[in-house]
Amino acid sequence: MSFSTAPSVSVKLTTSRTLLPRAACALKSQGGDASISSRAYSTHNLQSPPPVVFCLQSKAGAGGGEIYLPSARYEKLLEVYGKVVSVRRLRSFEFRIQVRVRDDVSVYKRVEGVPLSTQWGPQGYFYAIQIAQYGLSHYSKNLTERPPHVEVYDTAEDRDSRASTAPWSVPKGCVLSRVLDKTRATSVRQFSAPESSEGVSLQLGNSKDFILSLDIKFASNGSVSVILETTEKGPPFTIHYVTSTQLIAFKDHEITYGVGPRNVWSTLTRDLLTDLRKGVGLSNTKAVKATKIMPRRVVRLILHGRGFVDNVTISTTAHMAAFFAASDWLMRNQDERGGWPIMVTRKLGEGFRPLEPGWYSAMAQGQAMSTLVRAYLLTKDQVYLDAALKATGPYKVPSAQHGVKAVFMNKYDWYEEYPTTPSSFVLNGFIYSLLGLYDLTETAGEKLGREAGQLFSRGMESLKAMLPLFDTGSGSIYDLRHFMVTTAPNLARWDYHTTHINQLQLLASIDNAPIFKDVVKRWKNYLKGIRAKHN
Amino acid sequence: MSFSTAPSVSVKLTTSRTLLPRAACALKSQGGDASISSRAYSTHNLQSPPPVVFCLQSKAGAGGGEIYLPSARYEKLLEVYGKVVSVRRLRSFEFRIQVRVRDDVSVYKRVEGVPLSTQWGPQGYFYAIQIAQYGLSHYSKNLTERPPHVEVYDTAEDRDSRASTAPWSVPKGCVLSRVLDKTRATSVRQFSAPESSEGVSLQLGNSKDFILSLDIKFASNGSVSVILETTEKGPPFTIHYVTSTQLIAFKDHEITYGVGPRNVWSTLTRDLLTDLRKGVGLSNTKAVKATKIMPRRVVRLILHGRGFVDNVTISTTAHMAAFFAASDWLMRNQDERGGWPIMVTRKLGEGFRPLEPGWYSAMAQGQAMSTLVRAYLLTKDQVYLDAALKATGPYKVPSAQHGVKAVFMNKYDWYEEYPTTPSSFVLNGFIYSLLGLYDLTETAGEKLGREAGQLFSRGMESLKAMLPLFDTGSGSIYDLRHFMVTTAPNLARWDYHTTHINQLQLLASIDNAPIFKDVVKRWKNYLKGIRAKHN
Repeated sequence: MSFSTAPSVSVKLTTSRTLLPRAACALKSQGGDASISSRAYSTHNLQSPPPVVFCLQSKAGAGGGEIYLPSARYEKLLEVYGKVVSVRRLRSFEFRIQVRVRDDVSVYKRVEGVPLSTQWGPQGYFYAIQIAQYGLSHYSKNLTERPPHVEVYDTAEDRDSRASTAPWSVPKGCVLSRVLDKTRATSVRQFSAPESSEGVSLQLGNSKDFILSLDIKFASNGSVSVILETTEKGPPFTIHYVTSTQLIAFKDHEITYGVGPRNVWSTLTRDLLTDLRKGVGLSNTKAVKATKIMPRRVVRLILHGRGFVDNVTISTTAHMAAFFAASDWLMRNQDERGGWPIMVTRKLGEGFRPLEPGWYSAMAQGQAMSTLVRAYLLTKDQVYLDAALKATGPYKVPSAQHGVKAVFMNKYDWYEEYPTTPSSFVLNGFIYSLLGLYDLTETAGEKLGREAGQLFSRGMESLKAMLPLFDTGSGSIYDLRHFMVTTAPNLARWDYHTTHINQLQLLASIDNAPIFKDVVKRWKNYLKGIRAKHN
Repeated sequence: MSFSTAPSVSVKLTTSRTLLPRAACALKSQGGDASISSRAYSTHNLQSPPPVVFCLQSKAGAGGGEIYLPSARYEKLLEVYGKVVSVRRLRSFEFRIQVRVRDDVSVYKRVEGVPLSTQWGPQGYFYAIQIAQYGLSHYSKNLTERPPHVEVYDTAEDRDSRASTAPWSVPKGCVLSRVLDKTRATSVRQFSAPESSEGVSLQLGNSKDFILSLDIKFASNGSVSVILETTEKGPPFTIHYVTSTQLIAFKDHEITYGVGPRNVWSTLTRDLLTDLRKGVGLSNTKAVKATKIMPRRVVRLILHGRGFVDNVTISTTAHMAAFFAASDWLMRNQDERGGWPIMVTRKLGEGFRPLEPGWYSAMAQGQAMSTLVRAYLLTKDQVYLDAALKATGPYKVPSAQHGVKAVFMNKYDWYEEYPTTPSSFVLNGFIYSLLGLYDLTETAGEKLGREAGQLFSRGMESLKAMLPLFDTGSGSIYDLRHFMVTTAPNLARWDYHTTHINQLQLLASIDNAPIFKDVVKRWKNYLKGIRAKHN
């Protein structure tokens, strides 16, 4: 493939200032034992931070400048903090993405490029919430960050017909050639390197950036390996991406990720920093160990097996690749009920029956909707919208029947982040489920979006009525377990309190009910130690 | 009347240590802006303190030693903190009280001896909650305080037949004589003193005690006046108790209380300290002004009009007189629905319709029950028990139909201290209403008490379910207005929080549901600044 058009790894719509989601307030609380966390949120953070707030906004900028609100008026323009991107530019963006998606159907078959969660199980598992957040986070970073630097190592183009395999090293027993790929209408590298050989390798030598991307198609089992110099003493690390379905392994400076069969063309995009840390941190205990290891230099790329490769690059970021990796993971993994079953046991706490593997989460459903709606808006590919619409399925089914719907006191519908028995009424997860419905309703149009709109309205009615139950007068409560299982209130720590504020501020920008404005004001005051009045 | 039996002003069952209700904890909170109030509660306190906790207890002493719990096993024995009073002594007590009540039916017609509230209206009004608390407070003080000192000034007995009017002064135009009252079978003073005269007067000269008591029967309009030297400079004050229905007036060192016609024998018992302060503090503004004025010496008693007088005493306390004054006020003022209508407008706050004069309060009903049940236990007079049973009436009627019953979320019955629209769910008032039902259920027996028992059970079910909604993780909430009218939580100040704890500790002693024990423990910790955990 040629890079005659814009670099494919990044689509930059605007260069608004970077407003990474963060605790909105770093003021010291006078209220007690909790201090305010202001650490930035990374989707790879292993300590279960509150998620980022996203929503398609009908009134751009109404949420104020303190929180991160990527906002879009989809078909006509994109606005980020009031900066209007021209319709023309958006159109070209959409067009390019459409091409990117359409020219390789195998994009839906990839098994890579999304984070693996280890929060509730040491072996790692795919967690739809984390994957959707990963996608949304990259979607928003693409809107707000500077364009990345892209270093191109090989495009297999005919710049020097004599040295057709340069700059590759091809040891004895291995073969490398340049061939025309008809389906792609571009030159690619064909390689053959037995497992027992050193493999064909490409010198990289990049010390600045760590996002590796390449197009690959295997004709056998095989692997793509990367040699990394790191901040640790001793030999370099090697990360192997192998054509298997294993998830992750680590032994003796060798980290292995399974990336699936890869027998059709696909783009492999990996964050080497993340892959290094996640591998090195791997343990048999519950959580991944924190590690400070950093890559210093990407030394070289090594291929084994038989197949084709093209467009080897290293770049600062590849947000759109990450966004579509997430979107496409969601497309591939949605089940026949429209849900993303979560395959780990979740124990919410005393008094609740554990959620056995296969449960749905309204938060996963909602954040997946938010992701898929954006993929649809970018690509205009109806499959994304259809998947988002289908994702409403579990909202309509009670928790006890494998759905996510709870009803508070026989009156108020609530979509459960954890569809426990008894119900748990987790506030932030519910609001994310509503934001997904909102995004979908706004995007799908009156007819297709009617049902989502009704679910949204019922949920908002519940939220407006029940929100006071989460207000302690000096902070907020994470869920209603105190009422449901007769226990102490599960106070929200400050970063969740801040998430609540951000979410409500967002809702205040799309619904002018006074409660949102009032609660945001009061709950912000709690951050400063200003409590509600006593009698 | 002769004092040949024990002094009638005090019935002392036991001399347990004095445990006046007070804030249970004086520890400093680390939790914020509220400091812990530990001031003792007086029924005359004008700043609307939380009320005292009373309850007949089935398991004596189970509530622990920190709160005040007068406890009784009625017909067989009285226990106060495990000190058992003999059945014989209780029986003689009951007998004496029965005589006291029965020998003068006019006791039900008196208009005096109970406090006048000025909390919500400067002109003063009778408030059933305050009167019941006044009675209960004196009931408990009688159980726990030392017997009072009683100074007897005149019994009209024939100790000195020559100086039959000594020690009285009888100016010109006035008459005083000693006569036999056949209905009372005792000597009494007959007096006649025109309004224009100085009046017949009795030198008192008591600087130690300030509870005046006398038996009186007027044959015309008239008055009993007391001259008081006080801590204020200038002339002494005069307090007039006049045969009118006016409530209270104050002008130029003259304080006037109406005590009704008094044309049959009744006992007038007055706390001169309270009457002095309440009169001097009278103002046209909302609340009575606080004043530090104290009586120094009760100089003399002056009578005007025509009538009879007997048994003039001054004593330290007259708790049983006060208790029966309260009980009998409740008997006289109960209406045909069993309620004690409150004749002032009560505005609970924004979002609530004002309660117009005539509203009932579940707290008044409950505390009246607690009072009347004790009067019944002391006297065995069925009229008290019948009145207590009748007092359940408003519990069964919704607030909107002039009752006190609210229903939370269509599920939980709640008896409203303030039967507002929308409902307000004041916690402490509800618990008092339950304690009244409990006292009544325990006293009335299986058949008569069945309905009260059902109301109690339904209320306890509601309390157990809803109590967590009042828990902020660092304190408690006074009511559910935040949920009902979508506002900030109305945090309970520390003395109300302490009242909540005392009430729940009491409930823990009569119901072993874990919630009471757990909440008491946690809420006590809040007093020490130990908050609930955050997530």
